[in-house]
Amino acid sequence: MNWLDEGALFSQIGNFLHEDMGRGDITTQSTLKRSQSAKGRFLAKEPMVVCGLEAAEAVFSTLDSQQQLEAFVSDGEEVQAGKVIARTSGFADVLLSGERLALNLLQRLSGIATVTRQYVRAIEGTPAQIVDTRKTTPGLRMLEKYAVLTGGGRNHRFGLDDGVLIKDNHVALAGGVATAVERARKAVGHLHKIEVEVSKESDLREAIKAGADILLLDNQTPEETRRMVEVARGLAPNVLLESSGGITLENVRAYAEAGVDLISIGALTHSARAVDISFKMQPA
Amino acid sequence: MNWLDEGALFSQIGNFLHEDMGRGDITTQSTLKRSQSAKGRFLAKEPMVVCGLEAAEAVFSTLDSQQQLEAFVSDGEEVQAGKVIARTSGFADVLLSGERLALNLLQRLSGIATVTRQYVRAIEGTPAQIVDTRKTTPGLRMLEKYAVLTGGGRNHRFGLDDGVLIKDNHVALAGGVATAVERARKAVGHLHKIEVEVSKESDLREAIKAGADILLLDNQTPEETRRMVEVARGLAPNVLLESSGGITLENVRAYAEAGVDLISIGALTHSARAVDISFKMQPA
Amino acid sequence: MNWLDEGALFSQIGNFLHEDMGRGDITTQSTLKRSQSAKGRFLAKEPMVVCGLEAAEAVFSTLDSQQQLEAFVSDGEEVQAGKVIARTSGFADVLLSGERLALNLLQRLSGIATVTRQYVRAIEGTPAQIVDTRKTTPGLRMLEKYAVLTGGGRNHRFGLDDGVLIKDNHVALAGGVATAVERARKAVGHLHKIEVEVSKESDLREAIKAGADILLLDNQTPEETRRMVEVARGLAPNVLLESSGGITLENVRAYAEAGVDLISIGALTHSARAVDISFKMQPA
Amino acid sequence: MNWLDEGALFSQIGNFLHEDMGRGDITTQSTLKRSQSAKGRFLAKEPMVVCGLEAAEAVFSTLDSQQQLEAFVSDGEEVQAGKVIARTSGFADVLLSGERLALNLLQRLSGIATVTRQYVRAIEGTPAQIVDTRKTTPGLRMLEKYAVLTGGGRNHRFGLDDGVLIKDNHVALAGGVATAVERARKAVGHLHKIEVEVSKESDLREAIKAGADILLLDNQTPEETRRMVEVARGLAPNVLLESSGGITLENVRAYAEAGVDLISIGALTHSARAVDISFKMQPA
Amino acid sequence: MNWLDEGALFSQIGNFLHEDMGRGDITTQSTLKRSQSAKGRFLAKEPMVVCGLEAAEAVFSTLDSQQQLEAFVSDGEEVQAGKVIARTSGFADVLLSGERLALNLLQRLSGIATVTRQYVRAIEGTPAQIVDTRKTTPGLRMLEKYAVLTGGGRNHRFGLDDGVLIKDNHVALAGGVATAVERARKAVGHLHKIEVEVSKESDLREAIKAGADILLLDNQTPEETRRMVEVARGLAPNVLLESSGGITLENVRAYAEAGVDLISIGALTHSARAVDISFKMQPA
Amino acid sequence: MNWLDEGALFSQIGNFLHEDMGRGDITTQSTLKRSQSAKGRFLAKEPMVVCGLEAAEAVFSTLDSQQQLEAFVSDGEEVQAGKVIARTSGFADVLLSGERLALNLLQRLSGIATVTRQYVRAIEGTPAQIVDTRKTTPGLRMLEKYAVLTGGGRNHRFGLDDGVLIKDNHVALAGGVATAVERARKAVGHLHKIEVEVSKESDLREAIKAGADILLLDNQTPEETRRMVEVARGLAPNVLLESSGGITLENVRAYAEAGVDLISIGALTHSARAVDISFKMQPA
Repeated sequence: MNWLDEGALFSQIGNFLHEDMGRGDITTQSTLKRSQSAKGRFLAKEPMVVCGLEAAEAVFSTLDSQQQLEAFVSDGEEVQAGKVIARTSGFADVLLSGERLALNLLQRLSGIATVTRQYVRAIEGTPAQIVDTRKTTPGLRMLEKYAVLTGGGRNHRFGLDDGVLIKDNHVALAGGVATAVERARKAVGHLHKIEVEVSKESDLREAIKAGADILLLDNQTPEETRRMVEVARGLAPNVLLESSGGITLENVRAYAEAGVDLISIGALTHSARAVDISFKMQPA
Repeated sequence: MNWLDEGALFSQIGNFLHEDMGRGDITTQSTLKRSQSAKGRFLAKEPMVVCGLEAAEAVFSTLDSQQQLEAFVSDGEEVQAGKVIARTSGFADVLLSGERLALNLLQRLSGIATVTRQYVRAIEGTPAQIVDTRKTTPGLRMLEKYAVLTGGGRNHRFGLDDGVLIKDNHVALAGGVATAVERARKAVGHLHKIEVEVSKESDLREAIKAGADILLLDNQTPEETRRMVEVARGLAPNVLLESSGGITLENVRAYAEAGVDLISIGALTHSARAVDISFKMQPA
Repeated sequence: MNWLDEGALFSQIGNFLHEDMGRGDITTQSTLKRSQSAKGRFLAKEPMVVCGLEAAEAVFSTLDSQQQLEAFVSDGEEVQAGKVIARTSGFADVLLSGERLALNLLQRLSGIATVTRQYVRAIEGTPAQIVDTRKTTPGLRMLEKYAVLTGGGRNHRFGLDDGVLIKDNHVALAGGVATAVERARKAVGHLHKIEVEVSKESDLREAIKAGADILLLDNQTPEETRRMVEVARGLAPNVLLESSGGITLENVRAYAEAGVDLISIGALTHSARAVDISFKMQPA
Repeated sequence: MNWLDEGALFSQIGNFLHEDMGRGDITTQSTLKRSQSAKGRFLAKEPMVVCGLEAAEAVFSTLDSQQQLEAFVSDGEEVQAGKVIARTSGFADVLLSGERLALNLLQRLSGIATVTRQYVRAIEGTPAQIVDTRKTTPGLRMLEKYAVLTGGGRNHRFGLDDGVLIKDNHVALAGGVATAVERARKAVGHLHKIEVEVSKESDLREAIKAGADILLLDNQTPEETRRMVEVARGLAPNVLLESSGGITLENVRAYAEAGVDLISIGALTHSARAVDISFKMQPA
Repeated sequence: MNWLDEGALFSQIGNFLHEDMGRGDITTQSTLKRSQSAKGRFLAKEPMVVCGLEAAEAVFSTLDSQQQLEAFVSDGEEVQAGKVIARTSGFADVLLSGERLALNLLQRLSGIATVTRQYVRAIEGTPAQIVDTRKTTPGLRMLEKYAVLTGGGRNHRFGLDDGVLIKDNHVALAGGVATAVERARKAVGHLHKIEVEVSKESDLREAIKAGADILLLDNQTPEETRRMVEVARGLAPNVLLESSGGITLENVRAYAEAGVDLISIGALTHSARAVDISFKMQPA
Repeated sequence: MNWLDEGALFSQIGNFLHEDMGRGDITTQSTLKRSQSAKGRFLAKEPMVVCGLEAAEAVFSTLDSQQQLEAFVSDGEEVQAGKVIARTSGFADVLLSGERLALNLLQRLSGIATVTRQYVRAIEGTPAQIVDTRKTTPGLRMLEKYAVLTGGGRNHRFGLDDGVLIKDNHVALAGGVATAVERARKAVGHLHKIEVEVSKESDLREAIKAGADILLLDNQTPEETRRMVEVARGLAPNVLLESSGGITLENVRAYAEAGVDLISIGALTHSARAVDISFKMQPA
C-alpha cells in the first residue's frame, strides 16, 4: 500500500462491506445477542506467502472502530499449513459480519503474493526482475499490485496515465514504430520514458534509432529473446529490455538468462487462485 | 445481470475506467490523431463459455456513447479457439483506452462461466443443482454471480441480508442448533426460510426438530452425505439439503448422487482463472 | 436500527443537515458568540411512545463530535405530557443549528411508534402480529421501519429484493396465480418463501396448490377473511396468512380474531402525524 | 420545483429507487418475461389537490429513459374521487418496480397540497398568506415546499442560510431582543431582512426600535395578535407580521382577520396524511 | 469560514489532495524512509495580510490526523517580509506531500486578504464598506469570501439563491425596471430585500417608486454617483446604495466620498496575485 | 483538455454551478417567465488569447442539454478588444443563471493563456520551452494546465504521482543528492525519469554521477545558469536542464539563452489576472 492512502483503503472496504451486507446481517442479528463477545483465529490451511493483513483489519475496524487484529506474521512472510496468522477478539457480530470479506481479501492477496514469490524464486541469481501488468481485477488494482510487491515482484504501470507503452495496436494505427516513438517523445512530459513493443528485429532497430528508452519483447521464445537482447545492447547499451507473453514457471528462468531486465506476467494477478485460510470463532 | 441495473453497471464501469486511466491515456493521446478511426475484434484463444459481452460494450460506450459492440455469440454460448466473439469499430483512442478493461472483464467472467459449466455437466442427469457462494471478488459480486448463472449454475445468497444461513460459528456462539434456529425464526421476516449448517447427525435431527427449512451439510464425504440425506428425508420429506466443502470436478457427481438438492462451490468464483481472449485492431 | 449501520445513519444525518443549513445558520452566527455555551431539554407535550433518540443525538454529534444526549427514557417507552425525554449541553450554536432536524426526526419517528403501539394494543391476546408495508417516506425507510419495531410491530419486506410478494398486478400480467407462483419458485433463490395476494377463494386454492408459502388476503371483510382462513388451513395447515387493506384501529381486532397471522397497515408510516415535542434552551 | 433543478430531482429519485429495489425486484423478475408490455392508470380514490406528477414520471423514466406519463390534470388541480389522474404504458417490469415509489411520492405531495388548499380557502378574502415552516420531512424539503406552493401557500425559509429569523432561544442566549437584532443587522449581508420572534408587547416594541423588519408573533391568541398588530403598525407602518403556533383550520381565519400578513403552519408538512391513489395495471 | 462547516472544508481539502497526489507521492515515497521525522516553517517573503491558516492545517491533518500547525499570527494580521507565520513538525512524508497544496491555499487567500485590506484602507474614515462579488474562483467561493472578510471587507451574495439582485440583463428581458421589481417582490420570500442595477436617473426613480430596497449604481463616474446618491436619498432616505464597475485603488475613495454605502470590487477575488510564502524543512 | 475526460469536465461544472446556484437563481425565477427566449454574446474587452470555450459551453449545456455555444474563434487564438468571441441563444433563465460561471471560467483561463503566450513570445527563436508548475488553483489543475498548453507552453507534472522531482527538502531529509537519486532509481517504476533540484555545482556533479536524468536549476542568475549548463552538458550531453525561480517576462530570454531546455514559471497559473470579457443579452 502506498504510504498515505488509508482513506482510500477504508472507503473501498466500506463499499465492499456494503456489497455484502446490504441492509444488514440478518442471520447474526437474529441468532446472537448484540453484546456477546467472541474471539477468532485466521489459520493457514496450506503453505503461502501471507498478504493483506492491513486490509483484513480494516474490514473489522470499519464495522467497529475499536476492533484490531493481532498478527503473528507480517505481509510477505511465508508460512506453513497450520500456522495461526492472526487473531482478534471483540463483539461477536462484528467478527461474524466481517469474516467473509476479510477472508476474501486475505485469500486472494495471499494467492497473488504466493505465486509471485514462486516466479521470483525461479529466476533467483539472475539480474532480471518479475513485474506485473494491468491485467488486474477491476477495482482491486492498488491492492493487487501491493500483493505483487509483497511477493517480491515489482510494479509496472499503475494505469494508462502512468507511463508511455506503445503497443502493437498503437504502432499499427500510427503507421510505424518510428512515427509512434517520435510523436510520443514530442507530446509527453519530459519526466516520462518511452517503451515500445517490438516483435521483430527490424522494429527493434527502428525503435532504438527513434530514441525509445525501453523495449518490450512480446511473445518471443527465449532464443529469439537472447538474440534481440544482443542486438539491442549493441546499439544502445543503456536500453531496458522487457519480456512478456507465454511465460510460465517452467520457462521463466530461460527468459531471465536471455538477458532481459524485466519479465512481466499477467497471470500473477489475473489467474492466481485463492489460497486456503479459515476463520474459527469461539465465545470470549 | 438483473433487469434494471444498467445504471449500476455503468457507474461501476466508470470507476474501473478511472482506476485504469487516471488523468488520461498518455500513450494513445501522444501517438494517435484524435479523429483516427479503427476497428477491432475479440478473438477466443481457447475453448470457453462466453460471458460479459454487455459489460465489455459498456466499457466502450462509457468512453463514447455512440460506441457499440457487434457480438457474434450470446452470453452462455460455448465457443472454440479461433472464434471471433465480437467486433467493433469507432475512434481509435476509444478502442485503445478501453481494450484492457474490456478484456479484463470478459476474460474473468468467461472464466467463471466456463468452470461453472464444467461442474453443471458433471452432474447432468441428477436432480441436484450447482450454486455459488459469497466467496466472490470484493466489488464484483453482481457480475460474478451473473457469470455463474450464465454458466448454468444458480445463485445462493447475494449478501448477508439476503437469507438466513446459520453457520458453525453462529451455532457455537448461540449455544446450540436449536437455540439459533428458534431465535432466527422469531426475529426474521416471515418471507425468509432458515438454513442451518450441520456436520453430524445429532445436529441434523435437532435442526429439523427446531423447524429448519434447509440443511447445509458441510465437509462431509459422499457416503456421510448419503446417510444424512436419508435421515433428513425420513424426518422431514420437504427439507432442502445442500452440500459444501471439499467438492471438486472429480467428486461432485458422487455428492449429487447422494441425493442433495444443492451443491455450493466457492472455487467457481474465488479461483477461476481468466480465459485467453485477444483484441486485435487495425485502421478502419 | 440494525446493529452495524452507524455509518449509514451518520451519512444520512449529514445530508439532512446540509439540506437545512446550506451555507450556514446565519441567524445563529450573527446573533451569538461562537464560544457561548447552552443547555436544552426535549419535552413531551402529549402522551407518546418515544422513538429516535439515537438519530437525534447523531444530529448534534455530526455538528460537534463531542456533543452527547442524556436520555431519560429509552426508545419504545411510553411517556406522558410534561416528561423531559432528554437533555444536552454544549455549544449554543450546535444546539440551535441542530434543534429543528433533531425535532423533525424525533416527532416523526415517535409518531409512528405511537400509532403502531395503538394497533398492537388493539389486538393484544390474539396470535396475530402488526406489520408495516413499503408505504414509507422515500429516503426514510430504515428509520421508519425501526420506529414500527419500536412500537411493537414487525417488519415486512425492506425492499423489492427482500422477498417475493406476488400482487394482483403480477398475477394479471403473468396470466394467473399458478403460473406466477411456479415461475417464482423456479427462479428465486432457495432461501426465499413465496407470498401471493389473493382476493377470492378460487385463487387461494390455486395458490396453495401451486405451493405458495404465504397468502395475502387483500381488501376482505373480517367475515370473508375468517372463511378464507378456514379454507386455507384445511388445505395447508402451515400456510401463513396476512390481511391488508382497509384496516383501522376500529376493525383491526376483528381481523386478528379471524385467524390471520399478520396484519399489514400502510398508515403506520404513510399517515402518522408528528407528535408534539419541544426543545427549550437556556445559557449554561 | 425550481426551474433548473432537474438534475437534483433525478439524483434524489435514483436514491429512493435504490432504497426500495436494492439488488433488484425479485418478484417481477421471476414472474414476468422481460419484454412484456403493460399499461397502468393512477386513480384518485378521494377528493384531492393533485401534486407530484413530475416526480412520479421521474420514477419511471429513471428506470427506463423512454418511459413517460400522460397526465390528465396539472399539479394544483382539484379532482374528485374516481378521476384518472394519469396513465402510462411501457415495459411491465418498469411499471411494477416503480409503482410503489411513484405512489408514495404522489400520495404524500398531494396530501400536503390538499391540506394547504384547505387553509388557503379558510382565509380567502383576507390579505394574509399561508406559509410553510422548516418542519418538513428530512430529505424532502424541496418537494414538500413545492407541494405547499402548489396548494396555494407560500414558502418561508428554505433553510437556516436563507434568512434571519431570531427565535426565543436566540433571544434568551443573546441576552435580549435589542442585542440580537443589532448583532444580526451588523453581521449579515445587506440583502437580508431581519425577523424576530416576540411574545409580549415590550419585546415587540424593543424589536421595532432595534430595526427589525418582520415580527413573528408566536403562540398568541387571535385577540392578543390583534392587539400586537395594532401596536406594531402604530410604531412601524411597514413592518411585516407573522403568526405561528397553535393555528388550526378552525381558528386560522381569526388570525388572518387580526391583521397579520403571514400565517405559518407546521402541520402542512409534518402531519399531512397521504391521500388515497391507486395504480392498476393490465397487459398492453 | 462559517462556524460549523469543518466537514465541508475537510471534504474539499481531500479532493484537492487527491488532485495533486493521484496514486501517491512517488518522489517522497522512494527517497525517504516512512518513519522519518521533520519540521518545517512557513515564511513570509513579502508584506501581507495572512489568511488561510486553518485551511493549511487541514491539509496536513487530512494526511495525518495527528498533524497540527503552530501559528504565530492569526488570520487577518499584517506581517512583514521575513516573518515566520507558522511551524509544524511530524512525519517528513506528510509535510512533503502536503506542502504544495498548503502553500497554494495560503498564498492565494493571503493575496486576496492583502488586496482587500488595501481597498479598506483607501476608504478609511468614510461610512462606505468594501464588498466582494460572485467573480470568485469556481470551487473556492467560501474560502475566497472568507479571505475578503479577513481583509476587512464584507460579503455580497454567496450565490444566486442568496439574494435578489436584478441586473441590466434581467431588466432588459423583463421589459423594464418597474416590472422586474414588482415581479420579484411578489414571488420571493418575505425575508429578502430587492436590489436593482440602475445606470441612469430615470431608472433610479422608477426602481425606488417600485419599492426597491437597494440600488446598484454600475459603471458611473464618482460625479455621476454623487448626483444619483442625492436623488435617491431625496426620494427614499433609507435606500441602500452600492457602486460597482471600474473601481480601482486610485479612485475608490472618490466613490466612498460620493456617499454610497457599499463598493463592490470583482478584482478582490478574480485578479489577486498569490503572495510569496516559502516552506523550508529540516530533519527533526 | 484530454481526449476522453468529458465526464470529468461535466461533473466539475455541475459542482461549480451548485456552488453558485444553491437552491436556485431566485432573481431570474422571480423576474422572468420560464419560457422566455434570449440571446447573448461574449465580447472581448481587451486583447487576449482566448481559452475555455468548451468549459463555457459546458456550463450552459449542464443547465439545458440543448444549449450550445457558437464560437467565432478557437481556443488559442489571439483577439483584439471588441471581438465577439461567441454567441448563444436559448432560454433566458439558462443564459442568466450560467452567465457568471461561464465568464469566471473564460476570463481566468484566457488570462492564463494570455500570459503564457507572452512568455512563449519572449523566448521565440531559442530551443527552450515554457512549462508550468503545480502552483495551480486547487481544484482547477486540469483546466489551468490546458490553458498553459493553449497559450503555447508545455505541462510539467500533473501531480505528485506523475514524475519524480527530488527537491531541496527531499535532499535535505534524505541526507544528500546521491542518496536520494539512488533510492528513487531503485524504487520507482522503470518508466520514470528522475529530476533533481540543484543549486550549486557540486550538487549538480553529484546528481549527474548518481544518474539523474534531469536537473532543476532553482533560483540561479542567468550567468550562474549558463555556467551550470556548461558543466552539466560536459558531463552528460543528454541530460535535460530546467530553470525555475525568480523568472519574469523581463529576464526569461536570458535564461533561455543560457541554454536550458525548460523554464518553469509558477506565475502562469498562480498570479494571472482575469482578462475582461462581457456577456450582453437581449430578447430573442
